[in-house]
Amino acid sequence: MRVVFVAIGDELLRGESREGNGAVLADLLTSRGLRLAQVRVVPDDFAAISRALSELCEPPGLVVVSGGLGPTDDDFTRQAVAFAVGVPVVCDEDVLAGLRARYAKVGREMHPSNARQAEFPQGSQVLANEYGTAPGFALRHPAVQAVASDPERVPSSLIACFPGVPREFAGMLADHLDRLLAEAGVQDAATLAKTRRREVTLRLFGIPESDMQGVLTGLPHYRSVAMRSLPTFPEIRLKLAELDDAAGYDAMLAETRAALGWRIYGEGDHDSHAAATLRALQAGGLTLAVAESCTGGLIGHLLTEVPGASASLLLDAVVYANSAKTAVLGVPEALLASHGAVSEEVARAMAEGVRHCSGASLAIATTGIAGPDGGTASKPVGTFCLAVADARGTRSRQLSFVGLDRSRWKRVVAHSALAEVRRAALGWADRPPP
Amino acid sequence: MRVVFVAIGDELLRGESREGNGAVLADLLTSRGLRLAQVRVVPDDFAAISRALSELCEPPGLVVVSGGLGPTDDDFTRQAVAFAVGVPVVCDEDVLAGLRARYAKVGREMHPSNARQAEFPQGSQVLANEYGTAPGFALRHPAVQAVASDPERVPSSLIACFPGVPREFAGMLADHLDRLLAEAGVQDAATLAKTRRREVTLRLFGIPESDMQGVLTGLPHYRSVAMRSLPTFPEIRLKLAELDDAAGYDAMLAETRAALGWRIYGEGDHDSHAAATLRALQAGGLTLAVAESCTGGLIGHLLTEVPGASASLLLDAVVYANSAKTAVLGVPEALLASHGAVSEEVARAMAEGVRHCSGASLAIATTGIAGPDGGTASKPVGTFCLAVADARGTRSRQLSFVGLDRSRWKRVVAHSALAEVRRAALGWADRPPP
Repeated sequence: MRVVFVAIGDELLRGESREGNGAVLADLLTSRGLRLAQVRVVPDDFAAISRALSELCEPPGLVVVSGGLGPTDDDFTRQAVAFAVGVPVVCDEDVLAGLRARYAKVGREMHPSNARQAEFPQGSQVLANEYGTAPGFALRHPAVQAVASDPERVPSSLIACFPGVPREFAGMLADHLDRLLAEAGVQDAATLAKTRRREVTLRLFGIPESDMQGVLTGLPHYRSVAMRSLPTFPEIRLKLAELDDAAGYDAMLAETRAALGWRIYGEGDHDSHAAATLRALQAGGLTLAVAESCTGGLIGHLLTEVPGASASLLLDAVVYANSAKTAVLGVPEALLASHGAVSEEVARAMAEGVRHCSGASLAIATTGIAGPDGGTASKPVGTFCLAVADARGTRSRQLSFVGLDRSRWKRVVAHSALAEVRRAALGWADRPPP
Repeated sequence: MRVVFVAIGDELLRGESREGNGAVLADLLTSRGLRLAQVRVVPDDFAAISRALSELCEPPGLVVVSGGLGPTDDDFTRQAVAFAVGVPVVCDEDVLAGLRARYAKVGREMHPSNARQAEFPQGSQVLANEYGTAPGFALRHPAVQAVASDPERVPSSLIACFPGVPREFAGMLADHLDRLLAEAGVQDAATLAKTRRREVTLRLFGIPESDMQGVLTGLPHYRSVAMRSLPTFPEIRLKLAELDDAAGYDAMLAETRAALGWRIYGEGDHDSHAAATLRALQAGGLTLAVAESCTGGLIGHLLTEVPGASASLLLDAVVYANSAKTAVLGVPEALLASHGAVSEEVARAMAEGVRHCSGASLAIATTGIAGPDGGTASKPVGTFCLAVADARGTRSRQLSFVGLDRSRWKRVVAHSALAEVRRAALGWADRPPP
């Protein structure tokens, strides 16, 4: 039981693009209770590809290959796989007709070189590509069985080749992986169905990874699940997977939700903190205004990445200069002079000002010291203030993140503001639970 | 002459983090006229590491290893390298004393497990780490020379091990790579000095990569340089490297600058389009105000990633709702009703409004249709308008990018706005050259 990955491409070895398909395969395998044994990156070179395939084909197993399926002369994957397995490359007339039809449909003539995309090592099964033009293919190695009457007696590997374009690779892998794993003998279909345990991806913000680990290890059913955390600063994706104990998985999931509470903002690989914030606003029938100083527009940017943000977001006033705080939001000059721009008093005036001039039902404001300059003894670099203004009044607090560079600090402050909006929109207590 | 890379770490094969050190090494080698022959990612497993090293040590060559140098029980790199080479692991007392001193300096006691970071395969040279605690090491393989009187007669490889933490790996590699290449016999110092050609990284915005290639291939000295382009949407990093013809390199560099003109905004790996925009404003003694609709705060975010942005940026009004355009910027309701929010007329009113209420000398405004909804026959999804207002008056234009998802479209529109500000601040003609 062995799965390996080979990425083919000179561009990956010249520092022009970064290999990322291996991580996609690794994640899908881990979700299935399997493990990727090795990744190799090799150049667009016939000998290098053939040699890697020969070295890696330890049956039974699955060799996943990405790249080198394009129509140009430096795309060698078909030839190298055919050579390694010992079969010729042949044209698949059905695929060729499909390619021609595809070009005809958009009113273009197919360049002869594109016909190469219909060529495969003899005996291959074609892997449909719903995301681009070049299909993939899978081929058993060795192709010729020593015991012709009972090929199952001979251990063999399956070589499965996909285009290297990340979007196409990821889409096709999701479409074909389970069947390929079963066929490769890595796992039979029954085992695979059993191995395909339930898994949930929880999206979190508001707790350091080490603290989260401490909380989780203290839960009664901690040992009943397989757990992975994938930090994508300043958020965490926490994956919990079922083991043999289905009831234990359900219990651990419930315990995790209870223990981490509001810090879990959503679920799945495609959710975002901003989307969860907008959902909370919409659930409460609220509109939002933002006043940013230190975050410089990042809160607005995160919110407007979500389609439909305009239903909630009315205005984001990035009042970077003190004069803009006064002119646009009506923050009194005296307040700026007496408390300084980075103060809870100014944050509250900003939130109230932007709520007033936008007519939004809920407003959030940020002001802080991003650095590298501007810190003082009482308010060092990293200090910031948040204020929320809504129908219940105005609340504020002063917080600090130290030791982060400017860019990371902006991100964690912007996400802190999103968390504050979400909590306020959901009507939760202003301060996080202890 | 062969350089290979081995990344060690279970997390890289479980989809928890993405291998990126190989690309850093590949880029440094390519800059030196060398090529990375292969990348392997293997788990934290003694046998897997030893086997990869044995297979990859084809002398003469350099095997660069990252990861597995930490203080925990699953860090096997030292042992596996020692095993592959056939030497014991020994403690370096100088390094140990240095580690102890480092902990003492911050007032903490060193945990005994950290002493492992002072252990190396016998005969290693220690590679100083200015970026973290664990030093690296380099070791010749085979360690025992068959011809003791003349070890140069025996071809050998050099195995160089670095911590896997990306920041430490990148810093240490830059510090040690040239010497290691020379010692590995990949290239002697003289050849290396000769191979270490001049290379420049030009930063571009405002031209599709294929168009840029077309421009460059038409230049007289195109063949006199080695060229790589590294697209990082929506920008391009274009690397030109000297070949044997020094005068040709100088000529091609001048021709490239002349042909691409304003599209080259800066140089080097650490510049940014926003930083170049702020430099142009500062050179002109100008302050900036921004009015964003469709870009949703991204222009402000990009500008405020640059330390010192507050010297130029006074205000960024993200007026997402029409009511905010009117309330904050004084855009007449009648103008919105007659021309629609996505129109040159409204963009001009936004730019003039934000310039007026901020007191900035130069203002930029964006308004457009990000999609997926909101398009019309005359203004399909992807259409946007830019306007600049300054002491010379107000100029606007309508543009369009189609076929991009929301996030990429926002980025290219925001960068188009930065380019417009830069051109205006430099006093260049409003329209780009043909």
